[in-house]
Amino acid sequence: MDDVSRYIDQHRARFVDELATWVKIPAISSDPSHVKDMAANAEHLKNHLAALGPDQVEVWPTKGHPAVFAEWNHAPGKPTLLVYGHHDVQPVDPLPEWISPPFEPAIREGRMWGRGVVDDKGQVMIHANAIEAFVKTQKKLPINLKLIVEGEEEIGSENLDELMRANASRLAADFVCVSDTAMFGRGIPSLCVGLRGLMYLEVTVSGPKGDLHSGSFGGGVANPVNVLAKMIAKLHDDDGKVTVPGFYDKVAILTAAERKEIASLPFDEKEWLASTGSPAISGEKGFSTLERVWARPTLDCNGIWGGFQGEGAKTIIPARASAKISCRLVPHQEPEEIQQLVASYLKKLAPPGVTVRVEYMHGGRPYLAPTDHPVFEVAKRAFTRAFGKPTVFIREGGSIPFVRTIADATGKPCLLMGFGQPDENAHAPNEWLDLENFHLGIKSAAFLYDELSRIGKS
Amino acid sequence: MDDVSRYIDQHRARFVDELATWVKIPAISSDPSHVKDMAANAEHLKNHLAALGPDQVEVWPTKGHPAVFAEWNHAPGKPTLLVYGHHDVQPVDPLPEWISPPFEPAIREGRMWGRGVVDDKGQVMIHANAIEAFVKTQKKLPINLKLIVEGEEEIGSENLDELMRANASRLAADFVCVSDTAMFGRGIPSLCVGLRGLMYLEVTVSGPKGDLHSGSFGGGVANPVNVLAKMIAKLHDDDGKVTVPGFYDKVAILTAAERKEIASLPFDEKEWLASTGSPAISGEKGFSTLERVWARPTLDCNGIWGGFQGEGAKTIIPARASAKISCRLVPHQEPEEIQQLVASYLKKLAPPGVTVRVEYMHGGRPYLAPTDHPVFEVAKRAFTRAFGKPTVFIREGGSIPFVRTIADATGKPCLLMGFGQPDENAHAPNEWLDLENFHLGIKSAAFLYDELSRIGKS
Repeated sequence: MDDVSRYIDQHRARFVDELATWVKIPAISSDPSHVKDMAANAEHLKNHLAALGPDQVEVWPTKGHPAVFAEWNHAPGKPTLLVYGHHDVQPVDPLPEWISPPFEPAIREGRMWGRGVVDDKGQVMIHANAIEAFVKTQKKLPINLKLIVEGEEEIGSENLDELMRANASRLAADFVCVSDTAMFGRGIPSLCVGLRGLMYLEVTVSGPKGDLHSGSFGGGVANPVNVLAKMIAKLHDDDGKVTVPGFYDKVAILTAAERKEIASLPFDEKEWLASTGSPAISGEKGFSTLERVWARPTLDCNGIWGGFQGEGAKTIIPARASAKISCRLVPHQEPEEIQQLVASYLKKLAPPGVTVRVEYMHGGRPYLAPTDHPVFEVAKRAFTRAFGKPTVFIREGGSIPFVRTIADATGKPCLLMGFGQPDENAHAPNEWLDLENFHLGIKSAAFLYDELSRIGKS
Repeated sequence: MDDVSRYIDQHRARFVDELATWVKIPAISSDPSHVKDMAANAEHLKNHLAALGPDQVEVWPTKGHPAVFAEWNHAPGKPTLLVYGHHDVQPVDPLPEWISPPFEPAIREGRMWGRGVVDDKGQVMIHANAIEAFVKTQKKLPINLKLIVEGEEEIGSENLDELMRANASRLAADFVCVSDTAMFGRGIPSLCVGLRGLMYLEVTVSGPKGDLHSGSFGGGVANPVNVLAKMIAKLHDDDGKVTVPGFYDKVAILTAAERKEIASLPFDEKEWLASTGSPAISGEKGFSTLERVWARPTLDCNGIWGGFQGEGAKTIIPARASAKISCRLVPHQEPEEIQQLVASYLKKLAPPGVTVRVEYMHGGRPYLAPTDHPVFEVAKRAFTRAFGKPTVFIREGGSIPFVRTIADATGKPCLLMGFGQPDENAHAPNEWLDLENFHLGIKSAAFLYDELSRIGKS
């Protein structure tokens, strides 16, 4: 492992350059105008991996954006690890808030700044670089490794299930590793053992057939913006609980042991709050902040719009108003069921003066890892070897639908070994990647492959 | 008066042609690219009036678009009437919805179609044509008449107050007539005796310093969109009453006589509702639809925006959310006072997890005519002579700030004698003018001048 580790040190600068080159491709999966960029993005990754001596490397087309698959089967008798990542990125608006342009990666303060640097191109490259270090120094990997990098994670991984079903035998593995999460704090190696799920919908409230003069008609017809506001307001009670009937019915209650484990983490609530810039903590009554964001379901408006939004004043009763509403889900909530509950309730809340349309956009199921499986100890050891610090179990409030999908499909434990930072602006302007973490991440991945080579197949 | 009436009949076609010629000038006051058109528009009107033998006709420049002023002082000892109109027009978007181009006036179905045909060029020409009929048949007008036609009505009459102050003595009159409103229904002569005022503000709710990942942070900080929705929802109670403390304190309660008069109008609520396209009537409990839109104050969101509004899904806690909120006011509410009440209440409704900023945009005071003044009977008689039908008193839910301004400045009664139709699309595509109404409007104006000549100065 010394050769491998030295190789990673020696090629540190080039690894950074190569990541920057890839980040320049604006791979925004949600925007139809970037379809060609998505293809170029996948092609770029395929070419990069092709230079690392895989048995196979392929671009897998889907109904949407393509995925990239590669495999190294140089270790007969050794376990097979399936590594998952994604090559698509979030949209960039509001663009004016970026200090440097999102697709012109810049290095400042020991960080790389740009869209996708940490979510998830940087984390994909951590594995590519670890693979390279073995291949170049040892001629082969110590385990069998399969890499699947999808192009639709930021839009709900809609075609991933089908892709996995169609390629089930090629994706078969003993363990799964997902690198798309953040560490608990700066330099604290963390294994994520829980993810929230997601339910995302768009609701539109329509009133008049067109915008009306608010003088001539104001007071006589329902105003869709006011109505939508009232409907949204009724989705929470004064304790911050979601009021949608049935919403909490299947929620797994946190055990006393789980609450104790969460409470034992070195969580600095003041610092966390400062990182958001919000003036105060807020949330469901009766739970700590970590419990709220990791293990309690939520309902949030991600966007709202309707009527006149320009400069100045326009006196209209808007014809319609819309909102994007999403719920973060916890075991054992199911996205489709929650979607139906929320949609029904929204329709029930609407007064006769409007019509309501609800469009289900996408969902993802929550995940909780079987932490008593021995591979979690193996992963902890690898992480600790790279960082020189104890590894903690954490959860993540976000969603990676793939994790639950592959966990259910394979029945294999899924290691969530993430190298992001909690305040890295993953879905916001000025996304950044800590370059020291990037470097130690490459080493952690290498140690993981090494540690896994010493245990049997699962 | 027979000569005058016959002249109006004989020149009917030419009056229509002359209006069409003027309508061709695209006098959109809100669009800086039409500054030259605004000047040409004023010049066109000035030249038209100059041919009608005025003592004076002038273009009055302002900081914005020019006004046109003319006066006929041929009737010593007779009262002076000040007629107000405006020569600017609304924007035309969405252009594709126009059946014929907005500035190429077309005649179909007994109507002229084009931008400004009724709001307000047609109504200005009604007076110009009535003046012409007297001048050509009687060599003079039966009263003294002053005509002020401003160029900024559609953008808030920002420079009108200053213009009026600077020319107070030249604008002095016994009575004021504004022709910029609509009739109650097809062929029902209507005097508008009440206008609502306006208070317009913008509120912004800020939470995190930037958009946050709704997975990592959702549940832990206040979401500005949800908070704004909750604040807006709390501005009305379940009976549709505005909950802002003090909001109704100065509202003039409708008298039993006023309610009876409103109830006696041939109002077709089904037709009114159908014209909006809304699925149901909605509004403040305890009042009829006409009472609600004419004589009760309202609070409406004219626009709302925040967070992600694009195609697809973006899972964020938005950094901020904003809404444009306006109130229609009735006597004796004052815009500045209502602004302070609404702003204070909005700030009070905000939870600790957000900050709130309120920006006051503009306002206008409500108007209620002194209908017991004898000039209203005079105006009714004139209208009835032209249309052969009884004249009704109506109100208008919209605002014409000039009316209250001139009423307060002069202390004189203001006659709102409008010739539009309620469904004339004044601020929408396919604006139209009923040509029969245009013709009878010219006669009504002539009869008004004649009737006023028989009473004393006010």
